[in-house]
Amino acid sequence: MFSELVIPSRTIMTPGPVEAHPNVLRVMSSTILGQFDPAFLTIMDDVKEMIKVPFGTKNEQSFAIDGTSRSGLEAALIALIKPGDKVLIPVYGRFAYLLGEICERAKAEIKYLEKDWTSPFEQAEIIQAIDDFEPKIVAMVHGETANGQMQALDQIGAACRKRDIFFVVDMVATYGGVPIFVDDWCVDIAIGGTQKCVSVPSGMSLITYNDRVEKVLTSRYQKELGLSKMDRNENHISSNYLDLSQLQRYWNTERINHHTEATTMIYALHEGLRTMINEGIESVWARHKLNDEAIVAGIKAMGLGFFGNMGTKMPTVTPILIPEGADDGEAIRNMLLDVFGVEIASSFGDLKGKVWRIGNMGYSSRRENVLQVLGALESALIYYGATINKGEAVKAALKVYEV
Amino acid sequence: MFSELVIPSRTIMTPGPVEAHPNVLRVMSSTILGQFDPAFLTIMDDVKEMIKVPFGTKNEQSFAIDGTSRSGLEAALIALIKPGDKVLIPVYGRFAYLLGEICERAKAEIKYLEKDWTSPFEQAEIIQAIDDFEPKIVAMVHGETANGQMQALDQIGAACRKRDIFFVVDMVATYGGVPIFVDDWCVDIAIGGTQKCVSVPSGMSLITYNDRVEKVLTSRYQKELGLSKMDRNENHISSNYLDLSQLQRYWNTERINHHTEATTMIYALHEGLRTMINEGIESVWARHKLNDEAIVAGIKAMGLGFFGNMGTKMPTVTPILIPEGADDGEAIRNMLLDVFGVEIASSFGDLKGKVWRIGNMGYSSRRENVLQVLGALESALIYYGATINKGEAVKAALKVYEV
Repeated sequence: MFSELVIPSRTIMTPGPVEAHPNVLRVMSSTILGQFDPAFLTIMDDVKEMIKVPFGTKNEQSFAIDGTSRSGLEAALIALIKPGDKVLIPVYGRFAYLLGEICERAKAEIKYLEKDWTSPFEQAEIIQAIDDFEPKIVAMVHGETANGQMQALDQIGAACRKRDIFFVVDMVATYGGVPIFVDDWCVDIAIGGTQKCVSVPSGMSLITYNDRVEKVLTSRYQKELGLSKMDRNENHISSNYLDLSQLQRYWNTERINHHTEATTMIYALHEGLRTMINEGIESVWARHKLNDEAIVAGIKAMGLGFFGNMGTKMPTVTPILIPEGADDGEAIRNMLLDVFGVEIASSFGDLKGKVWRIGNMGYSSRRENVLQVLGALESALIYYGATINKGEAVKAALKVYEV
Repeated sequence: MFSELVIPSRTIMTPGPVEAHPNVLRVMSSTILGQFDPAFLTIMDDVKEMIKVPFGTKNEQSFAIDGTSRSGLEAALIALIKPGDKVLIPVYGRFAYLLGEICERAKAEIKYLEKDWTSPFEQAEIIQAIDDFEPKIVAMVHGETANGQMQALDQIGAACRKRDIFFVVDMVATYGGVPIFVDDWCVDIAIGGTQKCVSVPSGMSLITYNDRVEKVLTSRYQKELGLSKMDRNENHISSNYLDLSQLQRYWNTERINHHTEATTMIYALHEGLRTMINEGIESVWARHKLNDEAIVAGIKAMGLGFFGNMGTKMPTVTPILIPEGADDGEAIRNMLLDVFGVEIASSFGDLKGKVWRIGNMGYSSRRENVLQVLGALESALIYYGATINKGEAVKAALKVYEV
């Protein structure tokens, strides 16, 4: 016999998935609607509109994909890439390699522009690499969760547009948490996450793209065989499930049958976005910034160091150097989870065992969570005998909130 | 301003998505757990075990994919297909063409064995076609929702195994609703749905495969670039998101990071499967059969006809010929939804405008729902002036339940 689900209560201060907003959780127990029920179609239409707000876009094509964030990355890249196409991928963290992995499987010719992970690129460096490599597509990450650095995009986007290059940006970890201006920055396709700053459970990805991309998609559209034997197109996209040319025709008024939309996840997304929009997107950004300042102040006051350039750090992630006396950091991280019910993250690759990451995203980005994670981390470090400044962390954070 | 979600109450008697079980809806408001939180990993492990029961399998590799049903179909087919591989697709309904669409995009050489949609194949016909075409893979649909027919599989599976051919079966619309014996039938990969007989919202697909498939996957595994620059494999699968060789290493004890598992959907799946297993899988099948008998008796007593062979009809779908006086059936279907709050389905392709479909799946497969849909349909037909036997439908259904 399998026992009933018992979900322990957690304070989740990782870079995702984070705590879902109570408004979101509440609607997830709502009953199901059929995928073409007019009541459901209205919800989908509202979601389309609301997705645009945190992206800072007027793009008509803005919708959700029924798959976790990387499904949106793959859908975006395979929409544009044909075998042999040149893709430039600037790398300043782990997730640029995910873009590379996807491009490799799509048989692109890839050029990695690599640097250390302590800061993002100067935009001019990337523009120089564009001129050297002359790619069809530049694909990059806006905010790298593994090392917590964030890339400025506006000049790169403008340079791509001028050269008629497609600019694809992974905004999974920044969408909703920091100011994003897809249209002003000349981003052709942007992908956002739900399980981070939107406070919705993992399982969907958000996408927006402009007319330049839509034109490509129109040329690659193939109505599927189960619906028509006539509309064959040799230029079709390699995947059926992640075919944006079909997905947009399901989300748009054409309503051409593709998958069966994930009803409950759409309810959740509706409420996650609506809650953000009601708070005011600028207020949401300001809340993340303030809580980030408090986290940084607390960690600093404890005497711990940070990984990477603080001037280009994402406000949604803080990478902390694991201090001496804490080994690889796992015992303390486990204690935080088991004993304090607080989750923080480790990191990837070379940073594994050297860096902890405190996330600051969505509904988890709350004052009480910030104070709780600082207090618990301090207590765990003291318990394990690490040398820190005692009693300073929470005080320093409280001071930030006083201002 | 976007208004708060208001979900109208519906009795959903379509072939999916259907009503989620109250046990499922209840847990969907539970708080989030991190994807590597030990409490969440235990839930994933339980889900793996429970998925096997309705499949009738002992396959170690049985897990969920974060995408709607067709994501599982695509993951299964691209796991096996390399460009130029021969795939035989027997077609007796709409969804065989979805398999074809996916195989085409994977650049397979496809042979369709087509027949009219009124019944499935004699197994010997398919075995003959296998010997004629000598495919690497036979891909087919267990139950075709568009026309409500179901294919016997045991001899086909045995014939494939004998010839060392892979047998891939879409069980999306039958999983949990009718007896399935993946191991005994020699099915190599089977794909199940959640939004039908498991009474869980759409958004996931279920998959199981045996050692023969796992061997192929092992030969195609490529650890992704963000985790290792060493493990390149020219033979890798074309998709990263739907790469079963990666997915199984995330679901298994290796826990190699891939996507961020869809927390809430996994909670839902856990409870959907647990509820079925507690009812007893054979009792679940018997319940679907009984309710199907009542639906058929009611429709017959009303004087309406059925599409297709009743001896091979799926117990989970009943295709009804739209009677004269009801035009293309849409006005009555809309009245059912708007006025009675009851949803039934239309159909696809040539059957559109000629056939309604009443689903009988999962939590929607309940006596009160059956009686409600029969009563409402009779009333709507009378309202629109169709010639039917009045007052007979519900009585005939009640008689089935009396036995």
